Amino acid sequence: MAEGAETEAPERRFEIDPHFITLVTAAAYDRDGPELRKLLRDLHPADLADLVEHLPEEALNRLLRLIGPELPPDFLAELEWETRERVLALLPADYVGRALGELDTDDAAAVAADLDEQKLEEALAAADEDTRLAVEQGLAAEEDTAGRLMQRELAAAPEYWTVGDAIDHMRSEDAELPEVFFEIYVVDPGFRPIGAVPVSRLLRARRETPLREIMRPPQALIRPEMDQEEVAFVFRKYNLASAPVVDEAGRITGVLTVDDIVHVIQEEGEEDLLKLSGVSDASQTDTVVTSVRARAPWLSFNLLTGLASATVISFFGASIEKVVALAVLMPIVASVGGNAGTQALAVAVRAIASRDLTASNAFRHIVRELMTGAFNGLFMALLLAVAAQLWFHDPRISAAVAAAVVINLTVAGLAGILIPLALRRAGADPAVSSSVFVTFVTDFTGFLAFLGLATAFLA
Amino acid sequence: MAEGAETEAPERRFEIDPHFITLVTAAAYDRDGPELRKLLRDLHPADLADLVEHLPEEALNRLLRLIGPELPPDFLAELEWETRERVLALLPADYVGRALGELDTDDAAAVAADLDEQKLEEALAAADEDTRLAVEQGLAAEEDTAGRLMQRELAAAPEYWTVGDAIDHMRSEDAELPEVFFEIYVVDPGFRPIGAVPVSRLLRARRETPLREIMRPPQALIRPEMDQEEVAFVFRKYNLASAPVVDEAGRITGVLTVDDIVHVIQEEGEEDLLKLSGVSDASQTDTVVTSVRARAPWLSFNLLTGLASATVISFFGASIEKVVALAVLMPIVASVGGNAGTQALAVAVRAIASRDLTASNAFRHIVRELMTGAFNGLFMALLLAVAAQLWFHDPRISAAVAAAVVINLTVAGLAGILIPLALRRAGADPAVSSSVFVTFVTDFTGFLAFLGLATAFLA
Repeated sequence: MAEGAETEAPERRFEIDPHFITLVTAAAYDRDGPELRKLLRDLHPADLADLVEHLPEEALNRLLRLIGPELPPDFLAELEWETRERVLALLPADYVGRALGELDTDDAAAVAADLDEQKLEEALAAADEDTRLAVEQGLAAEEDTAGRLMQRELAAAPEYWTVGDAIDHMRSEDAELPEVFFEIYVVDPGFRPIGAVPVSRLLRARRETPLREIMRPPQALIRPEMDQEEVAFVFRKYNLASAPVVDEAGRITGVLTVDDIVHVIQEEGEEDLLKLSGVSDASQTDTVVTSVRARAPWLSFNLLTGLASATVISFFGASIEKVVALAVLMPIVASVGGNAGTQALAVAVRAIASRDLTASNAFRHIVRELMTGAFNGLFMALLLAVAAQLWFHDPRISAAVAAAVVINLTVAGLAGILIPLALRRAGADPAVSSSVFVTFVTDFTGFLAFLGLATAFLA
Repeated sequence: MAEGAETEAPERRFEIDPHFITLVTAAAYDRDGPELRKLLRDLHPADLADLVEHLPEEALNRLLRLIGPELPPDFLAELEWETRERVLALLPADYVGRALGELDTDDAAAVAADLDEQKLEEALAAADEDTRLAVEQGLAAEEDTAGRLMQRELAAAPEYWTVGDAIDHMRSEDAELPEVFFEIYVVDPGFRPIGAVPVSRLLRARRETPLREIMRPPQALIRPEMDQEEVAFVFRKYNLASAPVVDEAGRITGVLTVDDIVHVIQEEGEEDLLKLSGVSDASQTDTVVTSVRARAPWLSFNLLTGLASATVISFFGASIEKVVALAVLMPIVASVGGNAGTQALAVAVRAIASRDLTASNAFRHIVRELMTGAFNGLFMALLLAVAAQLWFHDPRISAAVAAAVVINLTVAGLAGILIPLALRRAGADPAVSSSVFVTFVTDFTGFLAFLGLATAFLA
């Protein structure tokens, strides 16, 4: 992965070179400003952010104190929030104020959200009026909504303009446009979007063409309060590069671009993965303390459900004392059920997230899970019964274990889909805490079915 | 979710209306061509695809037989592959050939990949020469690589052109351009990209400006054989809207756009979720047969590891016969360990996928997991020891369960990070099969530590 020694800043490389990190770290420890400047010159903001995230804490502190205010503000937008908080705390307020002004408004709001109150005040005091307003509006929108992600600068044109009018306007200095944009929005006199023209289409049309003729209806109008996960769904479904955000009156107030949505999709996918595994806060996993905190709640709950399942075992203490094979086999019945439940759960959570599993086809999905559970149950029951028979030579135990596996895997399939559906219906996130309930159900059912049947058969 | 009764095609709605599905289904069963045409008129291709995926099989068959060849080809690009295979089989070859020609080359290749051999031959025979060539080239690229995702049409300009030259060229009829594009690439005489100009910047520049002056270096050059997951990483990291694909000689051969990458990111996230839960093939989960097949391998393997862990229990049969409390508590020790291991695993798999966990910082991550496991172990040990003491009033058992929990959670933390790292080092996917190994380790360790210590303490 390392690409060998280089003293120049890396170019067009996708992963950061460990050797480069070492060089920067050494220069920072030596407080060698000129060397640091040379190393970081021409670094892409995303690579600079990557570097900052990989530097040892003390090296980062020294680097920021030495040349922090000379760094291009763009890199702040690329940092993960934990690092960003740390970096912002070490940068002077007037640099931060200037940075907020240079960033696109959506990035400025994201950065401002990671400033502590006092620093934010100082930074905004150092910024210009427009920046102050944009940041305050951005922060007023709730986190994880379209309003927070959107950019306020946008390209709009009245419906009576021609292509030439639009191009002339955009070439003029006073047009407040984002650095890069993909569409211009055609608006009515009330500033309501009635159409969109991809910039490439504008470019290919003759100057005298009215915008009305080449526009297409906007494919999706986003409301500022829409959750970012919903926004991501809309972008994915309609293959959007950008979409207008409109207020209650239908007026265009901002624009969302796909690069922000890419990060949302990535995050939401990761969050589902972590939530399903019982890690409660996706991004707070950097130190031991935060990791312990993010994982302890679910483990404690798991301990509780474990104790509840264990009471089932204790009811059959007499059987276990007599036939110790029961103690040997019972964890297998519970474990294979738990895994089957987790499989069904992962499929259901994914289908709910991608809207393949909706109220209108839930019944079909439930039947499929029930049958999949039953068939896999039969298959696993056969395997385990053969193993049990070879091991303990008692057909009553083998029969009990086989029947218990079929029961438990069928229940597992049902629990794996019904629990996330029920959570969603109750307005909760179907990924979070589903697996606690599912494994509780399969442990409980596994122990009860196996020990109960074995006790009956052996009596 | 339903938005009430409407007889017109739904517009700008993000989820499909169940009532609309009912209307279309009824019209299809009635073989009412005019009604179907009226209902589907003005439907966005993505909504049409959505509808097709929600129709009962027989209704879809009738609809396609009645008005299939009148449907806008774009919807084929939006279908999931299982449905697409079914739909393509029902459409006439000449329609499919025409569709391949109308789609962008990347979509055409994706659609062609779902045709059976004979139909593909017939469709290509009905298509024009350019389409045939583009599809064949697309299919020649391996699945899940940049070569398969890329589009062959692209906007390029020689370095000596001005903005005006570029615009005039793109306005001319003979420029073979994608329907929508975000950047034009400035190329040297060998057709190697030396710069990129966002279309919006081109639009805002004066006609006489040389392209050289407003271009920026291409942020990433993609090779056609690059895996789509790697491509997605590059797009995310550098916030790209599009990127050029270059061959060995550095010549530009195609372009990747972010809308395709959005789907890749979504898919890869879902795949990790499913793989980690032991569902072997992400997309083959539509019928009972495919679901059983996708899940049985992992369940069988789980049965094997379960039997291996059970042998540990059987060694301590004598202890369990004497003190049945051991059988009651041992699944809890194993289960809380399994969950802690799964948590560590999810964090590690996510960190590997997002490149936060690399060779250069692996040691720091491992130490963190070790300590997180130990601390959570102490915490859970305390809770479980109290519960065990209240339940069984035997300090030797309580001590054994506490010590076993600490040991198992520490081992779980280590296994959760070392196993995916080892798999990745061996060139395997760190998400797939990791969890089998992790739960095996924690079951085995849990049973061994608890039963071993309890036997020793009780002796």
